[in-house]
Amino acid sequence: MALTVEELARRLNARLQGGEAARPLSAAASLADAGPNALAALLDPRYAQYLSKTKAGAVLLKDGAEHPPVPGGTACLYSADPEGALLQALAILHPELPEAPGVDAKAHVEPGVALGQGVYVGPFAVLRAGCRIGDGSRVYAGAYVGRGVVLGKNCRVHPQAVLYDGVELGNDVIVHAGTVVGADGFGYKFRGGQLVKVPQVGGVKVGDRVEIGANSAIDRGALSDTRVGEGSKIDNLVQVGHNVQLGRHVVLCGQAGVAGSAVIHDYALVGAQVGIADHLTVGMAAKLGAKAGLTRDAAAQEELFGYPADGRRGYWRQVAAMKRLPELLKRVKDLEAQLEALKGKAGKGGAAP
Amino acid sequence: MALTVEELARRLNARLQGGEAARPLSAAASLADAGPNALAALLDPRYAQYLSKTKAGAVLLKDGAEHPPVPGGTACLYSADPEGALLQALAILHPELPEAPGVDAKAHVEPGVALGQGVYVGPFAVLRAGCRIGDGSRVYAGAYVGRGVVLGKNCRVHPQAVLYDGVELGNDVIVHAGTVVGADGFGYKFRGGQLVKVPQVGGVKVGDRVEIGANSAIDRGALSDTRVGEGSKIDNLVQVGHNVQLGRHVVLCGQAGVAGSAVIHDYALVGAQVGIADHLTVGMAAKLGAKAGLTRDAAAQEELFGYPADGRRGYWRQVAAMKRLPELLKRVKDLEAQLEALKGKAGKGGAAP
Amino acid sequence: MALTVEELARRLNARLQGGEAARPLSAAASLADAGPNALAALLDPRYAQYLSKTKAGAVLLKDGAEHPPVPGGTACLYSADPEGALLQALAILHPELPEAPGVDAKAHVEPGVALGQGVYVGPFAVLRAGCRIGDGSRVYAGAYVGRGVVLGKNCRVHPQAVLYDGVELGNDVIVHAGTVVGADGFGYKFRGGQLVKVPQVGGVKVGDRVEIGANSAIDRGALSDTRVGEGSKIDNLVQVGHNVQLGRHVVLCGQAGVAGSAVIHDYALVGAQVGIADHLTVGMAAKLGAKAGLTRDAAAQEELFGYPADGRRGYWRQVAAMKRLPELLKRVKDLEAQLEALKGKAGKGGAAP
Repeated sequence: MALTVEELARRLNARLQGGEAARPLSAAASLADAGPNALAALLDPRYAQYLSKTKAGAVLLKDGAEHPPVPGGTACLYSADPEGALLQALAILHPELPEAPGVDAKAHVEPGVALGQGVYVGPFAVLRAGCRIGDGSRVYAGAYVGRGVVLGKNCRVHPQAVLYDGVELGNDVIVHAGTVVGADGFGYKFRGGQLVKVPQVGGVKVGDRVEIGANSAIDRGALSDTRVGEGSKIDNLVQVGHNVQLGRHVVLCGQAGVAGSAVIHDYALVGAQVGIADHLTVGMAAKLGAKAGLTRDAAAQEELFGYPADGRRGYWRQVAAMKRLPELLKRVKDLEAQLEALKGKAGKGGAAP
Repeated sequence: MALTVEELARRLNARLQGGEAARPLSAAASLADAGPNALAALLDPRYAQYLSKTKAGAVLLKDGAEHPPVPGGTACLYSADPEGALLQALAILHPELPEAPGVDAKAHVEPGVALGQGVYVGPFAVLRAGCRIGDGSRVYAGAYVGRGVVLGKNCRVHPQAVLYDGVELGNDVIVHAGTVVGADGFGYKFRGGQLVKVPQVGGVKVGDRVEIGANSAIDRGALSDTRVGEGSKIDNLVQVGHNVQLGRHVVLCGQAGVAGSAVIHDYALVGAQVGIADHLTVGMAAKLGAKAGLTRDAAAQEELFGYPADGRRGYWRQVAAMKRLPELLKRVKDLEAQLEALKGKAGKGGAAP
Repeated sequence: MALTVEELARRLNARLQGGEAARPLSAAASLADAGPNALAALLDPRYAQYLSKTKAGAVLLKDGAEHPPVPGGTACLYSADPEGALLQALAILHPELPEAPGVDAKAHVEPGVALGQGVYVGPFAVLRAGCRIGDGSRVYAGAYVGRGVVLGKNCRVHPQAVLYDGVELGNDVIVHAGTVVGADGFGYKFRGGQLVKVPQVGGVKVGDRVEIGANSAIDRGALSDTRVGEGSKIDNLVQVGHNVQLGRHVVLCGQAGVAGSAVIHDYALVGAQVGIADHLTVGMAAKLGAKAGLTRDAAAQEELFGYPADGRRGYWRQVAAMKRLPELLKRVKDLEAQLEALKGKAGKGGAAP
């Protein structure tokens, strides 16, 4: 959608200065890439260098904060909350593309399916028996919704995503393409020289406003449910094992893995490629640095790094010390030689008079 | 399926004590979550604390073993093998949901496809020319079975799984949603400043009773076949490179990666997020701890940890020593200072009389 | 396709010696596996041991290089460039299987789609409005091509791959099964105790001759585009975050992860399970060893290992020193004791006469 600089300023409640008020804006872009019909923003001072050369039609700036000069053709939109204004502007300039409500003639819909108002179901999507799709939700082409699955309102299930039987999603949940929710947990008993499958009969319950990236896998519980609390965000290629309990507003970055029955409390931040061993607890607002391997519980607010994961201070002191290890080996060797020499002398010295 | 406590006890060959013999049971659940119509079990003493508060209609217990008191409403089912009894009970209470045999009218079936008895092929599944589907196997909605692919009996190929041309699965193989078997291995030759693709013309052969989790990728061989031995279990998001030879009853946990041409012998256990470099050999029943990075062969039964992977004892001694590194640096510095001081004295001492 | 040893020798411009010139060859195989109708090759001297026992009908050898004796039934094909000859032979013996050009009646094609010459679109493939498929490209069964997506010539988009709206691929691009290109980047702002989604409005631009393995995920940019330069090769289960700029001929091995806005220059080699933190730069032809975790920029040609990643020499010296750590601790303890003893003596010595 396009609108003028002036209109946008008004809708964002931003103070307009300079530039061309009547210029139409049709997109948001970075300071470096924005052209005369694009809006840019300076949220992070690290990018201030791009400001004086931007070709953007308008730029969002923090009201009252200093900034480098802005080219004459670029309108300044001063806002007390430029971040909030940018989020608003993105929603205005780049609204989600509509899909014609209804079930595509090429979809597969089994008996006993309940469809809310304004639902979109794409071609080759599969709605198995007894599933329920809430108002305004979209099941994109090729997505699979198993028996008895429940989707709340305004969910987005992207192409090729798979929700196994019985999975439940809250409202406003986004599942990106290729993600699998509710496959069997990895549970076997070793009996008679064989790994015997333990049927996985728990479910998966996903809270409101959860977003799950592409090609992730969230297993169903063994006996109980796997749970993802409201507002949590899961990146691409993330593994969540059976019975895991994710709290609210938890962040799991790309390729992180959470083993079975781990409990992660609200607002915890789990970095990329982190591994969390089974049955561990991660306290509220704890932070695990990228690639950390957690082998013990993390306390609330604790920050852990490395493998086995250690506190920030301890970890970086270790890293620094490790770099000095080869030198340390040499110093110890020197000490030993000197001491030996000294002992000889001291021996002699001791034997004197 | 539901049956009474008494009937279940009889079928599990378990000794019934207390509770209500006529109570219907319809599900299995954990001790903490089970309600009056659910069966729970105490297999792991770590969970004994939940026993005295359980609301389960019945609980499986080890015959002859001590346990905390069980609430009056809960029937005790004593078995010499509670684990085996639970597996049996899960199969009774939670049987796999049936699918009406036959090929869905919305599936795509090319000429020359051979279908066994009782096969299920879901909507939008694709059976390319010349593939063979063994008796009782299921190809779920949206799964892709390439040209000449062979499925044994009672296989389960879940939604969106992809079997490239020529892949062969044994009997009772389970491939979870989104998993890709037989994509090209990662093989290039550097020629003239470019990476030139080496056509990957080997296959993938998967043995009986193998289970592969969701969104994993098992590449076809370059010239020979990639092989997964019978009974092996592969978790979600696992990478198996071209020409890898997995033995029987091998376990690959979540997000593990096995690079090209590695050989992993029977009963090896590969932890989550482990990486195994190309051309390495992992001996029979070797164990690689989570996140280990293998850069040398692992002997039979060897246990390896960390990166580069080292033996259990060596690894944990290193970890312990590493934590003391900053302190060690300080101690060496002290030693140097003291020795210097002493040398001064000893020098004077040596000069004495 | 099958042809005789003699014909193949002629087409590869190789000198034929021994074996049976009229024997038909129908496949390429490894030295160990090849039968009498297969061609093998000795490219890597590590495999020379297999030469004297091979059953191959013919074997490609380096002209002028020594090699162990070859069995009498095996023809030697001497080439100045056996690697190039093998690539050629693979293309002759194992040509890509054809697909009948045209759009399968079971595909879904929206208005405004532009199809080049000789395009193949499989059953249940989805071509959304306004996408363009270049000459000779194939969109396999179940693949999803979003609105306005552009495919160049001779692309291969394998089953269940998903190209979100607006993604652009160059010529000769291969996207393997299950890979997702253009899902939303992982971008949120923390506002009012919640993670608020930042709409991701950039695109993804993929250059000519790029190959992307199975089940990888390449996110769209936040405001600008994510880019993959020509000739780059991406393995399975790789994560490429929003706004990442991959140069030309970059290699990302299996399960590697590149966080948002990182810049990776031409010819860089990123090992398996490597993690690259956001906003970092990896210089031209830099090499990151498997499992490395990059926390600082890598210079051109630099080789980095471990986590936090360090230079090759520094890293391996650290590894070696680390193995000696427990011993070092003991040595320091000994030194301290000896020094203490000596100080006692020296003290007495100093008190003498």
